[in-house]
Amino acid sequence: MKREQLLEAVRGQMTKHRYEHTLGVMETAVRLAEKYGADKTKAETAAILHDYCKFWSEENMRKIIETTPHIPKDLLEHDKELWHAHVGAEAVRRDLGIEDEEILNAIRYHTSGRENMTLLEKVVCLADYIEPGRQFPGVEELRQVAEEDLDRALAKALGGTIAFLVNREKRIYPLTVLARNSLIKSKKNNKQEE
Amino acid sequence: MKREQLLEAVRGQMTKHRYEHTLGVMETAVRLAEKYGADKTKAETAAILHDYCKFWSEENMRKIIETTPHIPKDLLEHDKELWHAHVGAEAVRRDLGIEDEEILNAIRYHTSGRENMTLLEKVVCLADYIEPGRQFPGVEELRQVAEEDLDRALAKALGGTIAFLVNREKRIYPLTVLARNSLIKSKKNNKQEE
Repeated sequence: MKREQLLEAVRGQMTKHRYEHTLGVMETAVRLAEKYGADKTKAETAAILHDYCKFWSEENMRKIIETTPHIPKDLLEHDKELWHAHVGAEAVRRDLGIEDEEILNAIRYHTSGRENMTLLEKVVCLADYIEPGRQFPGVEELRQVAEEDLDRALAKALGGTIAFLVNREKRIYPLTVLARNSLIKSKKNNKQEE
Repeated sequence: MKREQLLEAVRGQMTKHRYEHTLGVMETAVRLAEKYGADKTKAETAAILHDYCKFWSEENMRKIIETTPHIPKDLLEHDKELWHAHVGAEAVRRDLGIEDEEILNAIRYHTSGRENMTLLEKVVCLADYIEPGRQFPGVEELRQVAEEDLDRALAKALGGTIAFLVNREKRIYPLTVLARNSLIKSKKNNKQEE
């Protein structure tokens, strides 16, 4: 599918505000892909589709999680903010015929992250945090770090989510911690190689 | 071993400051055990011994972790602040003949916590955070919550450690997140039962 068709497909699924966010993630993901050497077309596609089912009902998402064998069931014990990523990957495969596993994984892990993320996954996940429409304390610093160090920027972004959950006394999805740990670890390894 | 013998055994292993901390943890753990219905004698013993090898050399602790089959090896990839807990449990078994697994587990998990902690483990872990000698931002609030809700206080304490590590851009030991999640989860379950 072409960019315009993809955009049309997601526009009908979401609010105007969320669609503008989607355009922001698209532009940012393409720019980061160019900067760090990820596939620009795949980054664009994953970014356009990343919130495909953000506004689907909780009931509908729960059903898809329960009935799709490879979606981890522990999601159901955590914030439903995490659900739309995994459900979205299934939905765009079913509704739009997206079969590229790299793109699907970038959608699947754009909220939680995971251990040993691919370059494409990192780019889409970080773009979602720093697209121009985002406003939260520390976002400017994050945008600055994103220009210098993809892994450190993403580790900081995920750390922000973790700190937010700690502050609200809410549970933390373990995969997010593993994602952040592996980004810090790989950074350390790089340093040792210098 | 009697309390005085245990105190004598740890006194020789640590600085005066750390010994005073140990006395603080001992008093606090016994008080919390009384309040929440844990075994007071076991709480006292575990608290006295919890920092038994806090000042052992990194090299010595590493060797014990590497050669003791049931000590998790992933500790070596994380802050060595975590090491003395597991090594301590082995050390007091070997040096002082402590064989009670409940006591050993309270020592073993006093820094990281773990999923589904026992009452004794919670008491010792929380006492280590809030003993009278501790000074850090939020400790007063934590002491107050500890009077009302053991699980919530411990979840807050572990959350503080997690936030500290996020702030320092350091890796988080996954078991600490699982420990905190299970404390929050069990609280939610309690609420549903009310």
